[in-house]
Amino acid sequence: MKFFSFWRSLASFRVRIALNLKGIETEVVQVNILRGEQCTDAFRRVNPQMLIPALEDGKGPTLFQSLAILEYLDETHPKPPLLPKEARARAWVRGLAGIVACDAHPLIVPRIRNFLEQEFKLDEPTRMKWIRHWFVEGYKALESHLANDGVTGRYCCGDAITLADICLVSHSVGGEFFDRGPAPYPNVARITEACLKEDAFARAHPLKQPGAPASISH
Amino acid sequence: MKFFSFWRSLASFRVRIALNLKGIETEVVQVNILRGEQCTDAFRRVNPQMLIPALEDGKGPTLFQSLAILEYLDETHPKPPLLPKEARARAWVRGLAGIVACDAHPLIVPRIRNFLEQEFKLDEPTRMKWIRHWFVEGYKALESHLANDGVTGRYCCGDAITLADICLVSHSVGGEFFDRGPAPYPNVARITEACLKEDAFARAHPLKQPGAPASISH
Repeated sequence: MKFFSFWRSLASFRVRIALNLKGIETEVVQVNILRGEQCTDAFRRVNPQMLIPALEDGKGPTLFQSLAILEYLDETHPKPPLLPKEARARAWVRGLAGIVACDAHPLIVPRIRNFLEQEFKLDEPTRMKWIRHWFVEGYKALESHLANDGVTGRYCCGDAITLADICLVSHSVGGEFFDRGPAPYPNVARITEACLKEDAFARAHPLKQPGAPASISH
Repeated sequence: MKFFSFWRSLASFRVRIALNLKGIETEVVQVNILRGEQCTDAFRRVNPQMLIPALEDGKGPTLFQSLAILEYLDETHPKPPLLPKEARARAWVRGLAGIVACDAHPLIVPRIRNFLEQEFKLDEPTRMKWIRHWFVEGYKALESHLANDGVTGRYCCGDAITLADICLVSHSVGGEFFDRGPAPYPNVARITEACLKEDAFARAHPLKQPGAPASISH
């Protein structure tokens, strides 16, 4: 497998966690999205949407979209599973993952921030307000389910790590980069801490990847 | 099952298509998101995130997030299947669904438009520019895969309807509401047309639901 990744990509962070949890070795290709390397002709041939993460695995089109890649890794490398067995619990886990991957994260990625800057001429403090607002909305949505749905244990869904935890941690770590960590949201904060004690999460952390700075804050 | 829906919600449109395809009867509860009914205390008890679609099915927390609900319906009512059998094809279909449900649709929903208006004081033409831009980006991303990945047939993935078609049609129909139909994108346009000839899609169309106007344009 050839995995196209970058330290700053929170969606790539999710895939790294899953690869670590399942013990899958890949060739890692760094695509520096801060320098626009995802827009080169070479990468366009890998993923015509010019986004990471992307995963090549044998023949057939490149795999794209972090949730689709996570489900693929879970189907092709079932141990340890990233989804519970029962359909309702699977839906709940996927719903939590969707809060992060659909409702929150797409709002704060570079292409959105660039549009706000270049098309709407919004200044840096205004763009930071936007980013922080949607991180907070994501936390609130996650916490509302974690606190009320009666499903939560050590991790989001009982005591086993699932897709929901992977996405939740990517949200919390991303939030910290923008001075919006998960501390005000007790279940999110507790689960983030529990996950980051796990080697598979800790090794996948953005700041532990090639090219990353020692720390980051906005 | 009790299904919380509204004509104007494109994510609810997706779930309606799946319910029709699988012949599942539900009690439908209209939640008028244009009047803010998703923010009432009553609905907050149904879905604390205050978003539709939501689905109640027996005991356990309400199901939320359209992709999670679609996967749940497919697991609990497997015929006809909404995903291919082979893992790579499943990933491709989920990737296409993610382009719509993660990368495009979350950018144009009412809460985003309200934020742009109320917090950033952006006027109506500027907000329309935003919405149309992300519809177009969604089409481009879908078309880039449909035209290049060698998987497309009558529908997105060969000749069977999948999650990808459901999401693609919700994008095209939503785009038409904002004067950005799929016509410039030949594969998207062709598949949209083929799907809307199917009764399950046609009956689910936003403008065929209770409370909908005869037509809509911005």
